[in-house]
Amino acid sequence: MSKDPLVVFTPSGKRGRFPVGTPVLTAARQLGVDLDSVCGGRGICSKCQVKPAFGDFSKHGIHSSEDALSEWNSVEERYDEKRGLKPGRRLSCQAQIRGDVVIDVPPESQVHRQVVRKAASARVIEMDPATRLYYVEVDEPDMHEPTGDLERVQRALRAQWDIPEVSTEFSTLSGLQPILRKGGWKITVALHSTDAEAVPRIVAAWPGLLETGIFGLAIDLGSTTIAAHLTNLDTGEVVASSGIMNPQIRFGEDLMSRVSYAMMNPGGDAEMTAAVREAISTLAEEIAAEAGIETAQILEAVFVCNPVMHHLLLGIDPVELGQAPFALATSSALNLTAADLALTSLRSSAQVYVLPCIAGHVGADAAAVALSEEPGKSEDLVLVVDVGTNAEILLGDTSRVLACSSPTGPAFEGAQISSGQRAAPGAIEAVRIDPETREPKFRIIGCKFWSDEPGFAKAAARTGITGICGSGIIEAVAEMRMAGVLDAKGLIGSAEQTGTARCIPEGRTHSYVLHDGTAEGGPLVSVSQGDIRAIQLAKSALYAGARLLMDERGVDKVDRVVLAGAFGAHISPLHAMVLGMIPDVPIDKVTSAGNAAGTGARIALCNLAARRQIERDVREITKVETAIEPRFQEHFVAANALPHAVDPFPELLAQVTLPEVSFNTGGGEGGGRRRRRRG
Amino acid sequence: MSKDPLVVFTPSGKRGRFPVGTPVLTAARQLGVDLDSVCGGRGICSKCQVKPAFGDFSKHGIHSSEDALSEWNSVEERYDEKRGLKPGRRLSCQAQIRGDVVIDVPPESQVHRQVVRKAASARVIEMDPATRLYYVEVDEPDMHEPTGDLERVQRALRAQWDIPEVSTEFSTLSGLQPILRKGGWKITVALHSTDAEAVPRIVAAWPGLLETGIFGLAIDLGSTTIAAHLTNLDTGEVVASSGIMNPQIRFGEDLMSRVSYAMMNPGGDAEMTAAVREAISTLAEEIAAEAGIETAQILEAVFVCNPVMHHLLLGIDPVELGQAPFALATSSALNLTAADLALTSLRSSAQVYVLPCIAGHVGADAAAVALSEEPGKSEDLVLVVDVGTNAEILLGDTSRVLACSSPTGPAFEGAQISSGQRAAPGAIEAVRIDPETREPKFRIIGCKFWSDEPGFAKAAARTGITGICGSGIIEAVAEMRMAGVLDAKGLIGSAEQTGTARCIPEGRTHSYVLHDGTAEGGPLVSVSQGDIRAIQLAKSALYAGARLLMDERGVDKVDRVVLAGAFGAHISPLHAMVLGMIPDVPIDKVTSAGNAAGTGARIALCNLAARRQIERDVREITKVETAIEPRFQEHFVAANALPHAVDPFPELLAQVTLPEVSFNTGGGEGGGRRRRRRG
Repeated sequence: MSKDPLVVFTPSGKRGRFPVGTPVLTAARQLGVDLDSVCGGRGICSKCQVKPAFGDFSKHGIHSSEDALSEWNSVEERYDEKRGLKPGRRLSCQAQIRGDVVIDVPPESQVHRQVVRKAASARVIEMDPATRLYYVEVDEPDMHEPTGDLERVQRALRAQWDIPEVSTEFSTLSGLQPILRKGGWKITVALHSTDAEAVPRIVAAWPGLLETGIFGLAIDLGSTTIAAHLTNLDTGEVVASSGIMNPQIRFGEDLMSRVSYAMMNPGGDAEMTAAVREAISTLAEEIAAEAGIETAQILEAVFVCNPVMHHLLLGIDPVELGQAPFALATSSALNLTAADLALTSLRSSAQVYVLPCIAGHVGADAAAVALSEEPGKSEDLVLVVDVGTNAEILLGDTSRVLACSSPTGPAFEGAQISSGQRAAPGAIEAVRIDPETREPKFRIIGCKFWSDEPGFAKAAARTGITGICGSGIIEAVAEMRMAGVLDAKGLIGSAEQTGTARCIPEGRTHSYVLHDGTAEGGPLVSVSQGDIRAIQLAKSALYAGARLLMDERGVDKVDRVVLAGAFGAHISPLHAMVLGMIPDVPIDKVTSAGNAAGTGARIALCNLAARRQIERDVREITKVETAIEPRFQEHFVAANALPHAVDPFPELLAQVTLPEVSFNTGGGEGGGRRRRRRG
Repeated sequence: MSKDPLVVFTPSGKRGRFPVGTPVLTAARQLGVDLDSVCGGRGICSKCQVKPAFGDFSKHGIHSSEDALSEWNSVEERYDEKRGLKPGRRLSCQAQIRGDVVIDVPPESQVHRQVVRKAASARVIEMDPATRLYYVEVDEPDMHEPTGDLERVQRALRAQWDIPEVSTEFSTLSGLQPILRKGGWKITVALHSTDAEAVPRIVAAWPGLLETGIFGLAIDLGSTTIAAHLTNLDTGEVVASSGIMNPQIRFGEDLMSRVSYAMMNPGGDAEMTAAVREAISTLAEEIAAEAGIETAQILEAVFVCNPVMHHLLLGIDPVELGQAPFALATSSALNLTAADLALTSLRSSAQVYVLPCIAGHVGADAAAVALSEEPGKSEDLVLVVDVGTNAEILLGDTSRVLACSSPTGPAFEGAQISSGQRAAPGAIEAVRIDPETREPKFRIIGCKFWSDEPGFAKAAARTGITGICGSGIIEAVAEMRMAGVLDAKGLIGSAEQTGTARCIPEGRTHSYVLHDGTAEGGPLVSVSQGDIRAIQLAKSALYAGARLLMDERGVDKVDRVVLAGAFGAHISPLHAMVLGMIPDVPIDKVTSAGNAAGTGARIALCNLAARRQIERDVREITKVETAIEPRFQEHFVAANALPHAVDPFPELLAQVTLPEVSFNTGGGEGGGRRRRRRG
């Protein structure tokens, strides 16, 4: 048996014997230990820090003594002086093995470190980004052996990093010569690979060692808002998040009106494309400024969006998406550059990845939800609902995943609601109605008190009580149903029928007053019969979509429900179920996944394998087109009642009692008329 | 032995037996016969025409009877009616085998047909272009099986052409949907591959079958002129040729003055880049109009140019090329798009190939000359000289090839010559001086008569006698030397010394008058002492470069000389040798290759394998940097004499007598001062 010292790396447990004098980094590489390095062992990038552990390790059969590693050398001393090494840490490229030793690789030194999401779900993201930094020392040009500067960079990458072949994003070529000379022939290059087999491309270069890192944008391009997370491509950390309104709203609130705009106005699609690209450029600039980085450090952007936004982003006329058979120009994932999309604030060589679409109405946003929530890996049957202007619905388990999209309209977001408003301070976000007195209490955004608590009036005075946001209207309608001021068909009773003066006449129908601020010059915040109809339309579309997937799957119940979407995070499961938005399941089986589409974008940004996975997965997903399924209409009509005309809701009814009232006096106001909307 | 009919294809000689009823195209494909088809056997593209031969073919052991193929079917009849089939021709996708038959594949039906160059050299170009057309019938979209339009095009290419994978140039994506619908789901796509292993990319699409073909531009981007050949990518035929002045001339006549402009003026490089790109765009528009095609049918452009033009075309500051060590940003061949180079008149997806550079002063133009003239395939030792403002010099045979560049300056092109002008009607292009009378005669461009022939005066009156062009000045100086009005050191004698009144004083030196038009208000066309010095500088640089390569190779003679360059075609070998421009070889061993760089560009445009070949070859070429070789100075000085101070010219002296005169009176006019120029 060899007498070379034994080295054990934790947490991997990889072990091996190495001759005295072997640098720890070299040993780690030979064993395939996941240990980062940008400078390639020159003691300047500090990415390869390790923590030797000393003492008896019976688990590993090692006694690790204090002198098991070489003493600090001048490189480590200089580094410590300049930047400070954490106590007990060593630079693994400098520390040499002298004896048996246990060496811990802390998470921040691992390339494939795991990033825990802040959101409720426990899923972690493993770092395996498409773009990485490499520091190289490049040979100076030699007239006797003429080669191009680029070719000598390629030679350095081959010799110093064992990367046999690299190509170059054309736009980086013009900057290469001054960068090499400024860096004294030492540069950091960023290499991007679309996948593990692809030849990496040089997408950026900096003189010397780039110490401030590189970043990527995970962009959730919605019909209404554009949200971006600026993510460090080394650590996976989200360093800034920001959102702006989608400027396309001026061409149409919902997707179908934008498609119409493109159809009615020659060049209208190009106008909308230019508007959204410019907005994304601005957003990138703002978010970089917020994080204190240069936009030139942003080397990637990942987009998730619905099919219409997808086409408008790419500069493709969305006209085909406005009519059957809803043909996408392309459903595949796309690898592009910032130049392709004219994202002028970014480097033109910044790489863009657009997630694949699932079908003409089920976009890259639904694919991102699938990537984030992984219904295909669920043991029990899960229904994932991404609630927005359009609802993306996924149903599946390990055996099969189905997807559809349903045109819920903007009611769930507080739009087209008489007292509706976007979620902002002053908006009613939670409602309770006493079933005895039928008096309401509520909470507004920006105030922790309920409206019947002391302190509310003072706190609310700052913002006023301005309207109802999406989660507020859902709770209000559900509470009205539970309190018996609203019947199963969706009719609001009169003051007479309900015994509360809060039910006031409005034409031939009634409204329920949540808050009367008129005496103080504020608004009358109420829920009108029209609002109820709008919510019924929206929730029927949502439920019908889910039901259609259940039919396809041959089931009449699901095991659990995940509410996704920025708005999904704020929906009360109980109230959603009273409305019959989602199928009946035990309340504790309804969870929120937050902005799952945005999370999917982040995962794709940080992990190359995840891109391959979703590209495979979307092909396996069964697409259900709600627009052509006759049963969708049936399900839609049946879902109009609160919670439902036919389907029993035993789990719900075990929790709450729904008064059996009926306010239909045979008058003019009938059932909800079907209005078909997309977007 | 099978009783199936025997089919023999000529000229390949490939043969095989096929069941009765097999279409001829199918048989050809199975045998690997080189037979074209764009429509994939649907009888609409007519590319697969063949000519059956009937009778006894003892060579093939076949009797081919008239009924050996099926009768004309309706597809062939319709095609013949609409467009006309040549007599005896059949559409091989329609004609079926009935009996033993000999079938000739005419050259125009071969994919890899050979294109004979018009120029003197017998080299043929085999067609193997990077871009090809494929006609496909695409499935219509189906809501029940949603896929993108692009994905269905990919599926059609897989099913109908056996092309397993294609990607798409992003800019073609936005046009795909309307094209598919306009063509009724039948389209022609152009696929481009950078090499045989690469995944082809869709770079263009047209509704239905594109019948008017696709084209490529072979562009020789010179310091002074930009020349382009528009080439049919199917047939290899040059359908139009055109040239324009390089607009960068306004920033500097020669390359070094342009580099200086970039160094002295911030943004000057970008200005020059924009100017040349705009000029190329305009040229592409003009040449397409001349050929009567759409610029959208131009799908490729191949560029050859010197390193400074290379960098300025690519948008790279050429500053490094102006100073040792003359580092190129990149020496590799480049695959780009028209969008990358902002060639706005072309489709943004048009593919651009830039030949590799050899070294900091030996550019893609020299590589193109190597590709065209193939010194590395020569059995005897050949010197290839591409004469221009800068001379590219190649020396080699099958064992090894060397290359250098030498700064000859613009004198050979008639610039910086007192009576010099560009080659244009009225310019003296050929000169003879009677060795007895020392009287000259000459020819001018645009007139077939010598100046002493009847008819000259009348013909010349149309243009006037306006100056001397490049080939004229070379002949004039050489004839002056042979007639004894110029001595070996390059001094023009006085009227007294030479006995002719045509030698007139000009300051302390003399000029030789070729033509005195002053009486008619025309110019005095003469050769001054300064002109002789300019020619001496240019020819010394050229000769010294060649000599340096010969030193490196260890030889003091070469077997043959090839003069290349647009101007090289017009140089008289004898006169060039009298001047000592090129080493001494038998006069019949000096040939002209015409515009070899342009030919190299055409070869690379038409043949993918040629690109790979030159990419390999440039790596093997030994680069010699004239600027740092001390012996270059020695050679330069020794080459100042006419023809040479030291090297004997036995082959030359066997043909001509050079009078041993000397006009040095010990006066002020000494030997040529060295002026170092680049460009």
